[in-house]
Amino acid sequence: MAKFINRKEFPVEWGHCDPAGIVFNARFFEFFDWGTWALFEAALGVRAPDLAATFGILGIPLVDAGARFLAPARFGDAVELASQVSAFRRSSFDVEHQLRVRGELAVEGRETRVWAARDAADPSVIRPQAIPEAVVARFQIR
Amino acid sequence: MAKFINRKEFPVEWGHCDPAGIVFNARFFEFFDWGTWALFEAALGVRAPDLAATFGILGIPLVDAGARFLAPARFGDAVELASQVSAFRRSSFDVEHQLRVRGELAVEGRETRVWAARDAADPSVIRPQAIPEAVVARFQIR
Amino acid sequence: MAKFINRKEFPVEWGHCDPAGIVFNARFFEFFDWGTWALFEAALGVRAPDLAATFGILGIPLVDAGARFLAPARFGDAVELASQVSAFRRSSFDVEHQLRVRGELAVEGRETRVWAARDAADPSVIRPQAIPEAVVARFQIR
Amino acid sequence: MAKFINRKEFPVEWGHCDPAGIVFNARFFEFFDWGTWALFEAALGVRAPDLAATFGILGIPLVDAGARFLAPARFGDAVELASQVSAFRRSSFDVEHQLRVRGELAVEGRETRVWAARDAADPSVIRPQAIPEAVVARFQIR
Repeated sequence: MAKFINRKEFPVEWGHCDPAGIVFNARFFEFFDWGTWALFEAALGVRAPDLAATFGILGIPLVDAGARFLAPARFGDAVELASQVSAFRRSSFDVEHQLRVRGELAVEGRETRVWAARDAADPSVIRPQAIPEAVVARFQIR
Repeated sequence: MAKFINRKEFPVEWGHCDPAGIVFNARFFEFFDWGTWALFEAALGVRAPDLAATFGILGIPLVDAGARFLAPARFGDAVELASQVSAFRRSSFDVEHQLRVRGELAVEGRETRVWAARDAADPSVIRPQAIPEAVVARFQIR
Repeated sequence: MAKFINRKEFPVEWGHCDPAGIVFNARFFEFFDWGTWALFEAALGVRAPDLAATFGILGIPLVDAGARFLAPARFGDAVELASQVSAFRRSSFDVEHQLRVRGELAVEGRETRVWAARDAADPSVIRPQAIPEAVVARFQIR
Repeated sequence: MAKFINRKEFPVEWGHCDPAGIVFNARFFEFFDWGTWALFEAALGVRAPDLAATFGILGIPLVDAGARFLAPARFGDAVELASQVSAFRRSSFDVEHQLRVRGELAVEGRETRVWAARDAADPSVIRPQAIPEAVVARFQIR
């Protein structure tokens, strides 16, 4: 079974870049966030702002993130961001991002996120919750 | 009666700057937002995140903003941001920001914000509300 | 003669929004910058990062900007940004931006920018330069 | 020999936060960048924008970054960011960041950066360069 991959294209803007003329590193994590929401929207067929209400969760908060910067991206570059869930666990999952410029892999990113909801007994407590099998299934391609 | 002026100092960071090596224009509006919250905190003696609850409002949303860019600010520059309320009206007010680098006026900003609360009759409606006289008085220096 | 208008569509991302759940004000100025570069690219048929070299200028620095915030934009909203040069003067010009959400005008922006180049006699000096007629003509629709 | 640690304090601003009311994840990488420049400035006694010229390098580009998000930071929180170089290698080094809110560790960050300069034989080529021993020594406390 292959994994569902979502691709998103966008240009590098002037304001994304730093005095070295390349995309400022923190911006890539912003792009990864774009990629994760777009991935979930595409895989689940639910608009990103409706995901929480649809699945009875508070959100998918990030608990770990990382990136390897292999080649710079510059103002005007067309970026292709490919995002997929590389692993689902009981209540957390990993997202892998590959950001390409002119076909070349420029940045690799990874995120670990939690499927988080209010505790049924005490709504003031937020805790990881089991990810529904129906959700996991939507990220597989048969 | 003089107006209460709040001053805030901070360095220009690498990530604030664009490929021209100067602070990217949108960042100044972010700085003005910092300045307005710091001004209200200092004038009213209430922590910024507690302002809404303290005064029974939802917030002070921006309805108009502008800036004149007179001189560039560069990585490592020490910025002094001076902010004051230049005019209070019934339910809105203007904030003026002067951003100086090495004593020189680099950017002038202005914001118009609204004192906004939920309607007593229909809480789903948010509307401008009269600014309490006690609030206005705290921005005057006798 | 009508003016050349460039339209750009993009989604409001999670990271664009503030604790009120709406796009943070400074982000709109970032969007306007996107709009101006896209407008020039489309009108002049030159990639944005090549504009300076193509026309022998350093860039089109911003000297004045403003915005009116009429309605909020929220996470997941599809934004349509329409940008045009509303006035050309000898060496500066005004750009008008209209940002619509679901067809409704949400934010109006304006920028004044300068056509800036190095002085021929003293390259250390940057100064406004006459905008070529051929450039101005490309922003008119006959 | 202990390691030189630089501490930097700043408030969480409204515009740093997302619709969940907590600092948006990409912002922490921006904060880490602030921390690294401040650390180098403090350890080396050279203003951040003068580091490149002082040491004959182009800069200290990031090649790898990561973060663990342990607890949220909210609008108005006073952040303490502690940064240190945890390892120097021949031409690269690791920076560790600990971001605390009310004394509690909220985010741990790490960066790997390169000491990068133009190649002496071919200035169009940028390559890692040996980090001077005098530089390394400044990050040790005897």
